[in-house]
Amino acid sequence: MNNAPRTVRLHPDDNVAVVLNDGGLPAGTALPGGPVLREKVPQAHKLALVDLAEGDAVLRYGVVIGRANRAIPAGSWVHERLLDMPAARPLEGLPISTVQPPLMPPLEGYSFQGYRNADGSVGTRNLLAITTTVQCVAGVLDVALARIRRELLPKYPNVDGVVGLEHSYGCGVAIDATDAYIPIRTLRHISLNPNFGGEVMVLSLGCEKLQPERLLPPGSFRLAPKAPAAPAPQGDAGLLGRPGEAPIVGHVRLQDEQHVGFASMVDDVLATAERHLQRLDQRRRETVPASELVVGVQCGGSDALSGITANPAVGACTDLLVRAGATVLFSEVTEVRDAIDQLTARAATPAIAQQMIDQMAWYDAYLARGGSDRSANTTPGNKAGGLSNIVEKAMGSIVKSGSAPIAGVLGPGEKASTKGLKGLLYAATPASDFICGTLQLAAGMNLHIFTTGRGTPYGLAECPVVKVATRTELATRWHDLMDVNAGRIADGEIGIDALGLEMFELLLDVASGRRTWAEHHGLANSLVLFNPAPVT
Amino acid sequence: MNNAPRTVRLHPDDNVAVVLNDGGLPAGTALPGGPVLREKVPQAHKLALVDLAEGDAVLRYGVVIGRANRAIPAGSWVHERLLDMPAARPLEGLPISTVQPPLMPPLEGYSFQGYRNADGSVGTRNLLAITTTVQCVAGVLDVALARIRRELLPKYPNVDGVVGLEHSYGCGVAIDATDAYIPIRTLRHISLNPNFGGEVMVLSLGCEKLQPERLLPPGSFRLAPKAPAAPAPQGDAGLLGRPGEAPIVGHVRLQDEQHVGFASMVDDVLATAERHLQRLDQRRRETVPASELVVGVQCGGSDALSGITANPAVGACTDLLVRAGATVLFSEVTEVRDAIDQLTARAATPAIAQQMIDQMAWYDAYLARGGSDRSANTTPGNKAGGLSNIVEKAMGSIVKSGSAPIAGVLGPGEKASTKGLKGLLYAATPASDFICGTLQLAAGMNLHIFTTGRGTPYGLAECPVVKVATRTELATRWHDLMDVNAGRIADGEIGIDALGLEMFELLLDVASGRRTWAEHHGLANSLVLFNPAPVT
Repeated sequence: MNNAPRTVRLHPDDNVAVVLNDGGLPAGTALPGGPVLREKVPQAHKLALVDLAEGDAVLRYGVVIGRANRAIPAGSWVHERLLDMPAARPLEGLPISTVQPPLMPPLEGYSFQGYRNADGSVGTRNLLAITTTVQCVAGVLDVALARIRRELLPKYPNVDGVVGLEHSYGCGVAIDATDAYIPIRTLRHISLNPNFGGEVMVLSLGCEKLQPERLLPPGSFRLAPKAPAAPAPQGDAGLLGRPGEAPIVGHVRLQDEQHVGFASMVDDVLATAERHLQRLDQRRRETVPASELVVGVQCGGSDALSGITANPAVGACTDLLVRAGATVLFSEVTEVRDAIDQLTARAATPAIAQQMIDQMAWYDAYLARGGSDRSANTTPGNKAGGLSNIVEKAMGSIVKSGSAPIAGVLGPGEKASTKGLKGLLYAATPASDFICGTLQLAAGMNLHIFTTGRGTPYGLAECPVVKVATRTELATRWHDLMDVNAGRIADGEIGIDALGLEMFELLLDVASGRRTWAEHHGLANSLVLFNPAPVT
Repeated sequence: MNNAPRTVRLHPDDNVAVVLNDGGLPAGTALPGGPVLREKVPQAHKLALVDLAEGDAVLRYGVVIGRANRAIPAGSWVHERLLDMPAARPLEGLPISTVQPPLMPPLEGYSFQGYRNADGSVGTRNLLAITTTVQCVAGVLDVALARIRRELLPKYPNVDGVVGLEHSYGCGVAIDATDAYIPIRTLRHISLNPNFGGEVMVLSLGCEKLQPERLLPPGSFRLAPKAPAAPAPQGDAGLLGRPGEAPIVGHVRLQDEQHVGFASMVDDVLATAERHLQRLDQRRRETVPASELVVGVQCGGSDALSGITANPAVGACTDLLVRAGATVLFSEVTEVRDAIDQLTARAATPAIAQQMIDQMAWYDAYLARGGSDRSANTTPGNKAGGLSNIVEKAMGSIVKSGSAPIAGVLGPGEKASTKGLKGLLYAATPASDFICGTLQLAAGMNLHIFTTGRGTPYGLAECPVVKVATRTELATRWHDLMDVNAGRIADGEIGIDALGLEMFELLLDVASGRRTWAEHHGLANSLVLFNPAPVT
């Protein structure tokens, strides 16, 4: 690693630069072609390149991230207490589809080993998911899951695991309220995630508000046959059902009269699970084009290097994925809100730009109803990590979306394939890591990239998560949690595009079955639903 | 069991009665002193005792539960489609503290075997709880919990178990929004539940919004000593700390620099847990008066028998508990809203009545903000179980509170002992079983009674839950899930007061260590926080 002072100025208009050196830079450091530091500036934090007067605009990414609330001499540490945050960009008068799409020739010949589903989607894992209608069944499900893992999974070696889709929704909620469609369609679409093979096993109680027919509307599903599946037709290795056929549903309802005693409930869950496992176990990976990937990109526990190392590299990877015909979901409303003008400008059509504006307006109103606004996004860790406010954080967040035109917008809980969307999509979700991940699963995500600067041991049971560290120190310390070290960019060891290509190739490996660190340790966070409607 | 037609009319003004027989009563059944049934009426459903004209008030519990929306001849099944629901009772002009408290002589000499805590509270279980600041740590905690159960608990036989207090709050939320105090104080107070012995072990990430100092304000806690606890002083068997001393806190922060690699995180959690376990293992049960019980009462999966069998028996038990000096928490705003006049009349003081009104008004506004109202409470199962609407459901729900004067009100997440409250308390919570249970745990609950008519396998890891079936059929079918069969009241086998006494004695046994069915099977539902503020 290079030990000379290293700083980065991201845009020619910027009057601040960011310190890259691990451990920061001490007072007195003379920056090549720049000021002498008046005080210590921590890694990922900003220094003033010129003297700033009170009220002067502070620019980073060529964007006003705030105004100096006192005079700041050149060489000073520019931290969040010195900046007043600008007001949110109005949602009127935005540039609409003004950006010429960059030249992005298709990337051909990239493939991975995936599980083809009858609905045309492709799984990167072969999982049995047990969907639940209501939290009431969670205790029984946990007991059953432990038995399935112990007694059944060893008999079905081609199945990667069993996942309980537990959640806090389903009853005790205002299920007919205006916004209740969001958690309901989220659960429906998660049940149909490509990693579950088009098999849907439902565990319900009986008296709950979220009845199975409301979760999975009748007519769009076939009941699971009681007998094991017939061998797959030739040339259609492991496909469950014929192409275009509706997914298979198995259902256990705890209040049904045949359940006499607790053991009979658990036995019934196991028997139903085994019928699904028999079918899933017949599946085999086959070569599929990279265009079948649906990659959710997200950042969490961000620092100021997120926007310099990991997120730009993800952006480069996003461009490669889009060129290969894959779908990429970027998200987090409050983390793009301040860059809305950049995004409407990149929208492929004015209609898409308008959908983006509508999502921002909806979320502005949602936050205002609760007495809050976008500034509630930033965390103590963000600030300690050098991010002064949500404007600066947003500029570093949106770079994950690369440079492709934005080809579509998904509301929270919507599914890309249901709307016929492919390519670079904006999936409007809260920025909470778990709510965003949950909604990206509903959108059809079969692979997840997650960048972090402060460090979080994030994982999902439903989908592999590739974790990217923004800093070498974190990547070294959390050597068996971080899958990629983007700190090498700050260390001058690799360029952004080269790391983007490395990630792209890693994603194809992981999609083909290579395990992530989170999978190795069995790390999985909870599903967390976005329910903007009241509970009762 | 008696096979003659059995119906119940609860108030002399009522013009409907409820069928008690398992399986209902067929058309043509002649009711003694009443009409002949014109159609089949299912168990727990209502029949018209007289001819009702369109617009006539339908009375049950002496209360107007709706108006007939067509003519209903005597002997008809009166189901929810025939009733128009009345408007909510206005919150002005209510009777305030008008009810003369019934003669309730103190009950003396009842005791149980409990764990005394330094703060004066008493546990019914001796559990290690690991509190979390944020969902980010849940994956690591799950791995650590599995190792604690396998490697540590066998060495500490006096400890009943280890509980991870996982939740979806802590980051990605508007933590400074108006209503954010509710989830924060809920988590704080749950960490201090009497069943956790005044030991608080915190697992945090580092960069999250809910910093440990915000969860547990400094000054009110002592750091855990690194060495095992000294033997307890004589005559103070197993008390951790001296009376009045602040609780002990142990803390592991995953982002701390000493954590190099995943295993070091898990090892640190185990080492910290073991120091708490060494202390908890020194505790012994001792005889304490029944007045140390803090019993949360709740109903879920209700039917029309809930208000005839199980809930009135719980009400009788509540009266015994209050007479013994114990604290009883009744809850569920939308399930008392329509009986607010009965409750303000029973308030011990006008100030308490006003607090009750304030809680109702707050919840009315909260529901209205989300485009909903109290009528969103009832479920398909409630209606199938004979409850036509929330008015009828509420009348059957409040009887759990018995007849004592209401001695205090807790807002959501408040703790009874912090406010110096004892006796019959109204803890204002949503009616969702899991949110209500979570908030009752925060209020200091050390024992839980839960009634159900449709059947739910509810359980909590933090506190024993005694489940009461409203019907013999359910109690028989779920013979190893239901702890009490209140269907015996409908069967004419036991009276309400006698069953209340039986429950009271069972509660003392369970408080002393007798395991409930949920504990026997290891059934536990998730904590679900009430967060009326936005996510970001």
